[in-house]
Amino acid sequence: MPGGVDSHVHLDQDNSPTGDNFETGTRSAIAGGTTTIIAFATQERTHQSLHPVVEDYHSRSRGKSYCDYGFHIILTNPTSTILRDELPFFVSEGITSVKLYMTYEPLQLKDGEILDVMMATRNLGMTTMVHAENSDMITWITARLAEQKLTAPYYHAISRPNIAEDEATYRIIALAELSDIPILIVHMSSKTSTAHVRRAQTRLLPIHAETCPHYLYLTADALKPSHPATDSFSGAKHICSPPLREDRMDLDAMWAGIANGTFTTFSSDHAPSKYNHPDGKKAGLGKEDGSMRYDQVPNGLPGVETRMPLLFEGGVLSGRVTPQKFVEVTATNPAKLYGLGDTKGAIAAGYDADFVIWYPTAEQVAANGGTNSAKIEPFVLENSMLHHDIDYSPFEGMKFHNWPRFTILRGKVIWDRDGSGIVSSMGYGNFLRRGKSTLSKPRNQWVNEFQPLPKK
Amino acid sequence: MPGGVDSHVHLDQDNSPTGDNFETGTRSAIAGGTTTIIAFATQERTHQSLHPVVEDYHSRSRGKSYCDYGFHIILTNPTSTILRDELPFFVSEGITSVKLYMTYEPLQLKDGEILDVMMATRNLGMTTMVHAENSDMITWITARLAEQKLTAPYYHAISRPNIAEDEATYRIIALAELSDIPILIVHMSSKTSTAHVRRAQTRLLPIHAETCPHYLYLTADALKPSHPATDSFSGAKHICSPPLREDRMDLDAMWAGIANGTFTTFSSDHAPSKYNHPDGKKAGLGKEDGSMRYDQVPNGLPGVETRMPLLFEGGVLSGRVTPQKFVEVTATNPAKLYGLGDTKGAIAAGYDADFVIWYPTAEQVAANGGTNSAKIEPFVLENSMLHHDIDYSPFEGMKFHNWPRFTILRGKVIWDRDGSGIVSSMGYGNFLRRGKSTLSKPRNQWVNEFQPLPKK
Amino acid sequence: MPGGVDSHVHLDQDNSPTGDNFETGTRSAIAGGTTTIIAFATQERTHQSLHPVVEDYHSRSRGKSYCDYGFHIILTNPTSTILRDELPFFVSEGITSVKLYMTYEPLQLKDGEILDVMMATRNLGMTTMVHAENSDMITWITARLAEQKLTAPYYHAISRPNIAEDEATYRIIALAELSDIPILIVHMSSKTSTAHVRRAQTRLLPIHAETCPHYLYLTADALKPSHPATDSFSGAKHICSPPLREDRMDLDAMWAGIANGTFTTFSSDHAPSKYNHPDGKKAGLGKEDGSMRYDQVPNGLPGVETRMPLLFEGGVLSGRVTPQKFVEVTATNPAKLYGLGDTKGAIAAGYDADFVIWYPTAEQVAANGGTNSAKIEPFVLENSMLHHDIDYSPFEGMKFHNWPRFTILRGKVIWDRDGSGIVSSMGYGNFLRRGKSTLSKPRNQWVNEFQPLPKK
Amino acid sequence: MPGGVDSHVHLDQDNSPTGDNFETGTRSAIAGGTTTIIAFATQERTHQSLHPVVEDYHSRSRGKSYCDYGFHIILTNPTSTILRDELPFFVSEGITSVKLYMTYEPLQLKDGEILDVMMATRNLGMTTMVHAENSDMITWITARLAEQKLTAPYYHAISRPNIAEDEATYRIIALAELSDIPILIVHMSSKTSTAHVRRAQTRLLPIHAETCPHYLYLTADALKPSHPATDSFSGAKHICSPPLREDRMDLDAMWAGIANGTFTTFSSDHAPSKYNHPDGKKAGLGKEDGSMRYDQVPNGLPGVETRMPLLFEGGVLSGRVTPQKFVEVTATNPAKLYGLGDTKGAIAAGYDADFVIWYPTAEQVAANGGTNSAKIEPFVLENSMLHHDIDYSPFEGMKFHNWPRFTILRGKVIWDRDGSGIVSSMGYGNFLRRGKSTLSKPRNQWVNEFQPLPKK
Repeated sequence: MPGGVDSHVHLDQDNSPTGDNFETGTRSAIAGGTTTIIAFATQERTHQSLHPVVEDYHSRSRGKSYCDYGFHIILTNPTSTILRDELPFFVSEGITSVKLYMTYEPLQLKDGEILDVMMATRNLGMTTMVHAENSDMITWITARLAEQKLTAPYYHAISRPNIAEDEATYRIIALAELSDIPILIVHMSSKTSTAHVRRAQTRLLPIHAETCPHYLYLTADALKPSHPATDSFSGAKHICSPPLREDRMDLDAMWAGIANGTFTTFSSDHAPSKYNHPDGKKAGLGKEDGSMRYDQVPNGLPGVETRMPLLFEGGVLSGRVTPQKFVEVTATNPAKLYGLGDTKGAIAAGYDADFVIWYPTAEQVAANGGTNSAKIEPFVLENSMLHHDIDYSPFEGMKFHNWPRFTILRGKVIWDRDGSGIVSSMGYGNFLRRGKSTLSKPRNQWVNEFQPLPKK
Repeated sequence: MPGGVDSHVHLDQDNSPTGDNFETGTRSAIAGGTTTIIAFATQERTHQSLHPVVEDYHSRSRGKSYCDYGFHIILTNPTSTILRDELPFFVSEGITSVKLYMTYEPLQLKDGEILDVMMATRNLGMTTMVHAENSDMITWITARLAEQKLTAPYYHAISRPNIAEDEATYRIIALAELSDIPILIVHMSSKTSTAHVRRAQTRLLPIHAETCPHYLYLTADALKPSHPATDSFSGAKHICSPPLREDRMDLDAMWAGIANGTFTTFSSDHAPSKYNHPDGKKAGLGKEDGSMRYDQVPNGLPGVETRMPLLFEGGVLSGRVTPQKFVEVTATNPAKLYGLGDTKGAIAAGYDADFVIWYPTAEQVAANGGTNSAKIEPFVLENSMLHHDIDYSPFEGMKFHNWPRFTILRGKVIWDRDGSGIVSSMGYGNFLRRGKSTLSKPRNQWVNEFQPLPKK
Repeated sequence: MPGGVDSHVHLDQDNSPTGDNFETGTRSAIAGGTTTIIAFATQERTHQSLHPVVEDYHSRSRGKSYCDYGFHIILTNPTSTILRDELPFFVSEGITSVKLYMTYEPLQLKDGEILDVMMATRNLGMTTMVHAENSDMITWITARLAEQKLTAPYYHAISRPNIAEDEATYRIIALAELSDIPILIVHMSSKTSTAHVRRAQTRLLPIHAETCPHYLYLTADALKPSHPATDSFSGAKHICSPPLREDRMDLDAMWAGIANGTFTTFSSDHAPSKYNHPDGKKAGLGKEDGSMRYDQVPNGLPGVETRMPLLFEGGVLSGRVTPQKFVEVTATNPAKLYGLGDTKGAIAAGYDADFVIWYPTAEQVAANGGTNSAKIEPFVLENSMLHHDIDYSPFEGMKFHNWPRFTILRGKVIWDRDGSGIVSSMGYGNFLRRGKSTLSKPRNQWVNEFQPLPKK
Repeated sequence: MPGGVDSHVHLDQDNSPTGDNFETGTRSAIAGGTTTIIAFATQERTHQSLHPVVEDYHSRSRGKSYCDYGFHIILTNPTSTILRDELPFFVSEGITSVKLYMTYEPLQLKDGEILDVMMATRNLGMTTMVHAENSDMITWITARLAEQKLTAPYYHAISRPNIAEDEATYRIIALAELSDIPILIVHMSSKTSTAHVRRAQTRLLPIHAETCPHYLYLTADALKPSHPATDSFSGAKHICSPPLREDRMDLDAMWAGIANGTFTTFSSDHAPSKYNHPDGKKAGLGKEDGSMRYDQVPNGLPGVETRMPLLFEGGVLSGRVTPQKFVEVTATNPAKLYGLGDTKGAIAAGYDADFVIWYPTAEQVAANGGTNSAKIEPFVLENSMLHHDIDYSPFEGMKFHNWPRFTILRGKVIWDRDGSGIVSSMGYGNFLRRGKSTLSKPRNQWVNEFQPLPKK
């Protein structure tokens, strides 16, 4: 299969200082079959220009990546200078996508700001990603939970109910319809939200959506402590946003959304923090005195390495997801959506020779005489098997019946599971200057520019 | 039939200084069959207390009303003192409803503020009314239209597209579901929005909705000048928000929403300003020099007198609306919803003797031998026939086949169309101390108070 | 409250020879608060004329009823003579409704026949009731189950899956839309089917629907033997069609459908057969030798007496159903729908003095000083408490907190629970000559007659 | 592009004796860019075996085809022998699909028969095509129109309203869900029906659908006479079933259904009859004396040659349909769905070298210096330009801006528009032994066979 393209990976961001950096994150990626990632260059609200931001992320990544990589820009302060003068520059530099937040106080944009960004990205042909949750709802519930001293990790799920995602999803689709731009809604987790996307697609709006492995497999039960007596805060390992959902119906809807084509991409949203670390943030240091609250825990899970094996296991091997669809959502679509559609995400003449090769299945081995030495033994995942710099995985204990045997990047084997494991050196990965999306574009209901004229 | 209850009437508000006051507005009401109105006491954002606000409106109305009346409070600055201390007082004084705005810069509340108000009104059993349009969308379009010098009245409709109402309607339903309160969404005009309400009702959420006569009869064409050569700005007469819609499909959906029960109330949203007035605001004074813009025109139409005749004409006489449904939406439901369900809105023992009596129809006259002197002649409406202090009606030129023959308030004839017209004196109308709504209440999914606890 | 009107009661029909007759059935009705029933006069397919059929049912009922009663005609062979000549006669005799079956080989009509009946009833202003299940689906599954010897009562539910009701419901609505007639779909049990009805109502089609007590309370689990060792066939007591459903979601949807107005009527579909009877049909005589199959068991449950108490218990006392809605679906609506709207179903001047009086609730007693001797003690239902001639009730073992204290028919007490129980004599009930429905009529999209002309 | 695969072509069928045979039909196909067609072998109800039927169609086609071809079997009398013994034989012979009719008296199957066929095709992995219209509705309207002497061609559209297709579509999806098989619903024309398919696909049911060129371009207006004075029956040229629709909304929905993926295939449903022919059937011979009725006109339009150019013109050139989607619905999907996915419908190693080559567009020519001699001149279609043996085309008068320049079958140019036109000889086309569908299969909710067992 084509090498995986993971278009949603957080590395070396200041807001998760104990997470992976480019070295450890991309090392983990290739051991899971991924040959390309797109990480984030994050503007802080005080930044008036994006130039130092992007340069900073270039220095964090240059020479440190095991796989090819690009950047999305996270916009938190979209000044008119940035929209008018800087974004065109970055497009010319191969950074052709931005990400916006509708939630998190320090990051979120208001509807009007979002519309301004949308008009800029529309004119530049950039892809706009959106984290869709209603911020006010969450803040309001969080305050009420705090009053009642309900601050254990499980209340993270209570504080961000489905309805917060559902409302924001409906709203961002409306904003995108108004401004006539394509968007990708990241990390969807709710059945109702997914139905909003499906209806928009039926109406031919260029609305794309993404889901992630944890929304297929885990419920809010994972936020409860596994060993209450010894560590009442261990559920914090599974704090991410949107949160893991309580109802299996939501998980089923994510599986269905992959199979029926609602989801364009399947990404890891790799955004981890170490649990046992002196800074104690993820593990709730000081929790004994009741001062630690779920809402002070860094959000995010590790998952760049397990992404492809998890969908292979529960999707391809179970028959829920065809091999073709697997390739589409893990590689082809993210490549096309983010302007890599001429070199990545497919096995074809002119494309980079990026591959992931799986073990033959038992049936294939049997058909082959049963003597295939490459046959994989089913195994139970332990965190020590992974290559990230994180001290847990939410998927530890799951049984796997396949895993990437080889990963090949631009013709060179970089992962050999039955051999030496990681067999390439740091720095082999290149920065990718991406082009414009070939998967999504405005419907051109307006010719050049917004023209709110009456219909003839 | 029971005398009409018009639960959405703006009188003597500072923001429409050339509109009707209590004398002229209630005189107009009774000539159209309405015996009870509910007007507004409007907090300005600088007001820290509601006490002077309500007292002010008492002085504006005391002794000046031809019909019975009550107040809703418009909240624009819901301080914690107001929510905690003042609202309970006003409930005890018989003011049991508030109105919130999601649009208009000087009035609008943010989602979090709305949730705070909702929790207060929920605990007090008050009814919460909401004007649902997305403010940012409208501001954003308005700015772009202004850049293009597209400021004629017709652009008012362009600046507030259906999608602005649809989005805000979805959002306010979500906020109401989260906080578990009943709401009434005022003056709905869009088919998609109405479908959101219907779906919420199907799920048993206590979502109520209102529509108005102009959304049944008029399209955005009315915003174009009727005589372009002599007055290019006359479309301004029809500026209201949400605006008149372009597509007849929306008008049909309003009729259907009345017939299928989606709309709880049918109100006038009487909120007029004089067109030919020295202040020139509605008529766009100074428009010749291009300085006048649609967005500086006071919003609102006159309609308290024509409300019941219009629904009788197009609904009851055409067969689209049964007489029972007519009574429900014009009288019974608004009385129940706003805590007047034990004295107003029905003909029953113990109720006030408030009636509206129509002319017999041609068939009734014929069945009676054809000699009934009370028979009405169909006529074409002229503004001079109306009793408001406004110099136009959006419904001038429409043909009517019936009209209230008598209006009776607490047993006394106050309107005698074939006699002396208005036959009561100003001040006969009483202030109504309203009780709690008997039509809507929370579902009580939480017993007393918000308890965001996990389900067992 | 007004006396109950149960518009779906099978009495003394040849196809359930061990069921109730008019004496026992109406005795049971009044003990449960019902003062009016509408039973069926059933045409068999060999009957070429309805005259002897109706006369037969008159003789079965004349002088034998404790409550007022009318007839629906079940049409199984709608000859052109019947449609053209006989139905007008029966309308003039006060039989103004027909019932059609889409299932059961000996009863069912084909789509074309249904359209023919619809045009006849449309022109006569009759109400058309329909049993909606896809016959071919059921026959096909039944044959496959028989091949596999899966014939226990539980397989009755398997043999008539939701999809059979859903498909037939969609189809009958389409036939009614095509021919522009109002219909009532009887005994609905499926969530998806109910959604079809709701959508049709939203579009203003005159589609009415009915549900029954057993679809609110019982699941397919009741079809399993309660004491497998001693009686493996006891689930047969709960065989009815549509069957009790497996998923509680369906039950919830029935409750919601009552509360949101989707259901016009709430009826018993009283159609019992004795379980322990020498004919052994319901109990599966000969079942030991494997020859007895669920599909040979007479369909139907007893319920005319428990109908109102059950909805009072789970609806009114729990708060899920308002007292107003209770009266609507148990009395007012069936009276209006079936042409009794001027004498039955309401407490008003000119109406029959038919009442049901309940015990005061504990709160009411307490408010009254707690000494009210009429206070009811909660009790557990036993079949011996009921007045039908059936040896079981599906609701035995349920706890009740209220029950009709008095039933009054045309001013006379006929049931006195704390006194002598049944206190009227057989024959006090009158045959009711019903008028036309005041609740439903065609939309008159065609003036008189089907005119398939192009739109202008 | 890959050569077109037209999976719905009627040739040399007894029921259209004046239509195309294999020679003229396939000649027409290749001139329109199609290299593979699937025609029908039609069982008549009197046929007890399929063997002579299929052999007959082999003799009609052997040595007479210009393009490659296969057969679907039309089943009108699915005896148990045929289902059990004959279908497996034909699968082994490469005939792996059947077509069923829900309408037309001589062809239609009842629901129970359809279920029997479905179980047989399910077990054999055959693809089941269905013509979905409610037969009884159509017969019933037709009879009423005949009574009123409304028999002009336009009444064909009145006699088969959208609701007939909508109902049958809902029903066939239900039957397919019950029996857990994949189906393709042929020639869809209605917006509501298409929405049923979309919802089924969202639920992951393997429901496929097809639409045709005429449902994208033509309305029921085409059934009215173009020159009433000289030929009042000319609308008969456009009689097909489902009929052309009255509302442009339906046409828009077909375009949207192609773009959003609801339609798997885009076929011609080529099923013509000559208009001016001595047998006079299509032209309504004897119509002067009023004896000719629309319902006696053979149904069907010519279109095998115009299929690809029409979608290219209105879809690809307008931007409504991407080139990728064009290839999918005209070639790749029909090849996969009908078991040709390893040789046809794609340009790839191992596939047949079947191509269609278009003229460069104006932009491409310009980019190339503007001297490209292969540039096409836009032209207006005349029937004389086409290669079928039919005397009209519904698309005459339409302007085209492109057309297949070359068609290549298995490496050989067979159509050279700027050269000699048809440049291959009859008989070059081969009969295709098709395999099983690679696009659709049962969901395997049952392992081998229908097992209506209770869920655990």
